[in-house]
Amino acid sequence: MALLRRKKKVVEEVEAPTPPPASLPDPPRTGEDGMRVMEDHRDYLLGLVEPLPYFGMSLLDAHGLTLCEDIRSETDLPAFDNSQMDGYAVRAEDIAAASQGEPLSLTVAGHVAAGDDGTEELAQGKAIKVMTGAPIPPGANAVVPLEFTDGGDEEVKVYEPVAPGEYVRVRGSDIHDGDQLMSRGQRLDARTIGLLAAAGIDKVLARPRPRVVVVSTGAELVDPGRPLERPGQIHDANSFMIAAAVKAEGCQVWRVQVASDEPEAVREAITDQLIRADLVITTGGVSKGDHDVVKQVMPSLGTCDFAEVAMQPGKPQGFGLIGEDRVPMIMLPGNPVSAYVSFQCFVRPVIRKLMGVEPLNHHPVRCVAGSVMRSAKGKLQFGRAIVREDNGRRLVDLVGGHSSHLLGDLAACNALVLLGEDTEVVNAGERVMVWMLDND
Amino acid sequence: MALLRRKKKVVEEVEAPTPPPASLPDPPRTGEDGMRVMEDHRDYLLGLVEPLPYFGMSLLDAHGLTLCEDIRSETDLPAFDNSQMDGYAVRAEDIAAASQGEPLSLTVAGHVAAGDDGTEELAQGKAIKVMTGAPIPPGANAVVPLEFTDGGDEEVKVYEPVAPGEYVRVRGSDIHDGDQLMSRGQRLDARTIGLLAAAGIDKVLARPRPRVVVVSTGAELVDPGRPLERPGQIHDANSFMIAAAVKAEGCQVWRVQVASDEPEAVREAITDQLIRADLVITTGGVSKGDHDVVKQVMPSLGTCDFAEVAMQPGKPQGFGLIGEDRVPMIMLPGNPVSAYVSFQCFVRPVIRKLMGVEPLNHHPVRCVAGSVMRSAKGKLQFGRAIVREDNGRRLVDLVGGHSSHLLGDLAACNALVLLGEDTEVVNAGERVMVWMLDND
Repeated sequence: MALLRRKKKVVEEVEAPTPPPASLPDPPRTGEDGMRVMEDHRDYLLGLVEPLPYFGMSLLDAHGLTLCEDIRSETDLPAFDNSQMDGYAVRAEDIAAASQGEPLSLTVAGHVAAGDDGTEELAQGKAIKVMTGAPIPPGANAVVPLEFTDGGDEEVKVYEPVAPGEYVRVRGSDIHDGDQLMSRGQRLDARTIGLLAAAGIDKVLARPRPRVVVVSTGAELVDPGRPLERPGQIHDANSFMIAAAVKAEGCQVWRVQVASDEPEAVREAITDQLIRADLVITTGGVSKGDHDVVKQVMPSLGTCDFAEVAMQPGKPQGFGLIGEDRVPMIMLPGNPVSAYVSFQCFVRPVIRKLMGVEPLNHHPVRCVAGSVMRSAKGKLQFGRAIVREDNGRRLVDLVGGHSSHLLGDLAACNALVLLGEDTEVVNAGERVMVWMLDND
Repeated sequence: MALLRRKKKVVEEVEAPTPPPASLPDPPRTGEDGMRVMEDHRDYLLGLVEPLPYFGMSLLDAHGLTLCEDIRSETDLPAFDNSQMDGYAVRAEDIAAASQGEPLSLTVAGHVAAGDDGTEELAQGKAIKVMTGAPIPPGANAVVPLEFTDGGDEEVKVYEPVAPGEYVRVRGSDIHDGDQLMSRGQRLDARTIGLLAAAGIDKVLARPRPRVVVVSTGAELVDPGRPLERPGQIHDANSFMIAAAVKAEGCQVWRVQVASDEPEAVREAITDQLIRADLVITTGGVSKGDHDVVKQVMPSLGTCDFAEVAMQPGKPQGFGLIGEDRVPMIMLPGNPVSAYVSFQCFVRPVIRKLMGVEPLNHHPVRCVAGSVMRSAKGKLQFGRAIVREDNGRRLVDLVGGHSSHLLGDLAACNALVLLGEDTEVVNAGERVMVWMLDND
């Protein structure tokens, strides 16, 4: 407990990391079409990653992170009776008869500021000037605010009486020694950080921000800001979009672009990144094409799983435990909308599991369809949509088409509508479930 | 425009900073009690700060920030017709008669991957193998997906016809050259970053994250993690709590503690910080006490305004334009709950103005009182409260007392209830307005 300097050992300080499995367990069953159900694939990935080990970190570094311990106070707050106002510590009974017309005079026997030790005893019939936060001297049982007096320094005239206990913040009136301040699983926000600091706690056990490397691959890719030099080239959108989405989840992120479909170049770029990664995300190269290099290369670097998931967009999916340390790697499809939807389905829950944040999965919100929606049977469809408040109801309308290259529509939407495998049509006014995208 | 490398100059690239006023204008009028109305004081401060000058920054650095320009696309997206699938580019009319029973064979005249220039013309009666994203060769008007064929490399059997245009992503079908991609005032999220990157844009005009220095003062303060060495000392909660709240608004933050009430120590500590600050926030030392050193020292460093605001907690407030550069400084009261409530009332709007984020002020949310609430007349009361959903209504209940030292209650609440100056009692079931605190 030297690390956390607390008296009571609440939990073991450094968690032993759970080693990744030596080989991938049996994958989830597929349907007759050879495809997995989205939730099955997601749960399969979640079963293959473990929360990052927590450690003691300083309060401000842990801002926004999830606490991995219950924390009890080891002190009363306030730790001593102190003044709520600038004024005079008195014995209430000495000034019970004070009034505007007939003020009572007391000799000022001392001054106590916040930070002074305030151990001088108050004698009967006297006053001690106290500042806000200053300890109440022994013998005093109330504070007369400055406004009830003439503010005198050696002699003070008191114009109003106070009751015993008035304007005194009593020891323990905020927190008692032993009170639970925070619970395991709670997020550290500004106010909980303030509370822990007040209780003298400077370090907490929390899981760190995952270090995530986002790799886009493809011979066609050119960095934005640079000119396209020949027909067939495109600007790389995926690595920027996914890196920003990863950042929004609270991770540290590195963006790497491999503008190549050469297996050796891709293998080398990914191997170079493993040293700093808790998670690697690639986009592109996991479909059935001849140049789907990620799919070709990864099995030589670790244990991999490639699957088709019954969803649109986002059908081709890959996962691996890569390199000596078996770093988890999620291989997303290359179409931008497919990559983004797959991020929401699979990467976000995995990041939250690494960080110990509950709930892992999106919380679906019930909305009313503003207009008719059509869907292809047999696949979970993610429609890009706009949700708006309308007289206390949440109305949702689709934006643009289903095609997974439509970034303009994706940028304009604020939600994904989930149209289940059995859904062919949703009529206006019927209920649909959506995932809100308000925090990326 | 060299900086942003775009063709069309949309706005001036670097904004000239607006100089701060030479002296403070007349303060807002006070009521008969000598106090200002909260909104008047807030608007007074907002009138004294200007948005930080924007400049060109890279996309990922601008994540979460507000755009200061309208951005139009200077390209079609996609920039060329390309294949939606792995398959074969064909003339649809050549395979119109293909069927499972009577497949049609085509000679494969070439392979085009994503990134290839794809300028080879497709001759009648032939096919060119194309990967997803590959340009459609001239002469072709459709793509037959791999799944509709035997996948042959030199000769391919086609089992299903496709219509002209099928499986082709047409140039400009996502975005047309000249389309507006984003508007001034929009926040850059993951998806808009993806869209801009796809359009080749790597830099945008945005206002930077403000550099904010948080200073706590007081001879009684001890850093958490260090022992209290004598009676009267307390652990510093304010600088941690306010620094975290500042971070949550998207700023860079430095925390400074001056465990002293010596004017020279406070003056020096604050002067040292001005060089790196767009905003300085202090807590403590602005009341009427003999040791309210911030109030004593600041006027020698700049132009200051000290006021009493008709609110509880948070009555004593200070503001200044400090040092040669007239850096704005907000001086908050020292009680932790007062400092936090003042942050929400005054500091958050000022930060949002510096960042160009609208709306500047909290959006009050209507709730139903779950139980009776009492308030002192003449002051805007901020009650710490918990809001919960109850059958589609938002019910709100107060947590703990009014006293401004109760950090435990502040940490437990998720909202502030606003009880107006004329309110004495709100009965259960009546409507009240709250500020949600869900993002600090």
